[in-house]
Amino acid sequence: MTTGRFLSLEGGEGAGKSTQARALAAALETHGIDAIVTREPGGSEGAEAIRALLMHGDATRWSARTEALLFAAARADHVEKVIRPALDAGRWVICDRYLDSTRAYQGLAGGIDDEAIRALHAFGSHGLLPDRTFLLAVPAAIGAARAAARDGLAADRFARRDPGFHAAVAAAFDAFAAREPARFTRIDASLAPAAVTAAMLAALADLLP
Amino acid sequence: MTTGRFLSLEGGEGAGKSTQARALAAALETHGIDAIVTREPGGSEGAEAIRALLMHGDATRWSARTEALLFAAARADHVEKVIRPALDAGRWVICDRYLDSTRAYQGLAGGIDDEAIRALHAFGSHGLLPDRTFLLAVPAAIGAARAAARDGLAADRFARRDPGFHAAVAAAFDAFAAREPARFTRIDASLAPAAVTAAMLAALADLLP
Repeated sequence: MTTGRFLSLEGGEGAGKSTQARALAAALETHGIDAIVTREPGGSEGAEAIRALLMHGDATRWSARTEALLFAAARADHVEKVIRPALDAGRWVICDRYLDSTRAYQGLAGGIDDEAIRALHAFGSHGLLPDRTFLLAVPAAIGAARAAARDGLAADRFARRDPGFHAAVAAAFDAFAAREPARFTRIDASLAPAAVTAAMLAALADLLP
Repeated sequence: MTTGRFLSLEGGEGAGKSTQARALAAALETHGIDAIVTREPGGSEGAEAIRALLMHGDATRWSARTEALLFAAARADHVEKVIRPALDAGRWVICDRYLDSTRAYQGLAGGIDDEAIRALHAFGSHGLLPDRTFLLAVPAAIGAARAAARDGLAADRFARRDPGFHAAVAAAFDAFAAREPARFTRIDASLAPAAVTAAMLAALADLLP
């Protein structure tokens, strides 16, 4: 049985992850690859219900520890019901945010130990990691402006955090990418959208049929 | 600062936990003790929202692993927002189900390792354990009949599980009580309600002012 490939897109608010996830799926299709696009938190019926608890309400609604447990629960459901079955069926999976977002937002920026977050992931999702992770990096000011233009007053609990928090998130992603160069590809997401998609596709050359 | 005492009531469906939690609070009040009654899953605004996800829907809606993470998240919120502040204010807390229910339902009866459930609890709630736990034990047939009379078609995801599951839950509670005799008091909950309350109060004699 051929197993599909698992790709994740990471980065702060307004980096263009959702747009690029769809663009990457379309680009892979031209190479004969059947890819599904999914997102976190959410991506399965149960995980989307947990997402509603996580994204709405006051910024202080949940402690970082409770958040980490809720993200791990949502991810466990998502992996079990959607990601693992797709990979087992030989499909590729492109996920808009995954474990590294929890490590960045609740971990380095939220004060929860990285080892603890990885332990929750090992318990809930058997530690499943992407084959490749694209870090879409934009200067904080550009990302914030893009996110504000998109969400306005509908910004979620995380987007509404202060600039210091978002800077800590960006620094966390950079640190992960530097520490795991085999999994991470850092891409300048201030480029034109087509150039960003092309850069991701180029980084996948060794995996294409 | 005087810290309050933390009591939990455990047992299968229809053991009379909710009734006895209220009766115990009233009995403690006659001893000049200010006790709050709370429950799990739930007990805080956030945890009640997680409870709604856990109790409704198909029996197979969540895997035991996802359930264990959701219970740990709900408990983390409940401990942080309700139990810990009440204890710190010198109040007693009587909780209708707590960690031992997760250990019984998702653990021994659900197939999740007890150590893993304790690790989630250590992460989410700093491992907070009750000072005393009352195991209200009734023969399975009596508990099932009581629960059916009470809930009818409104039975939740757990109450609807088969008799073998409930027998495994009862065996798990008995094992916990045998292993931790200093914390657990096993009470025959097929006695008259007033006798059950009196038995709990007698077991607390050394803690009363």
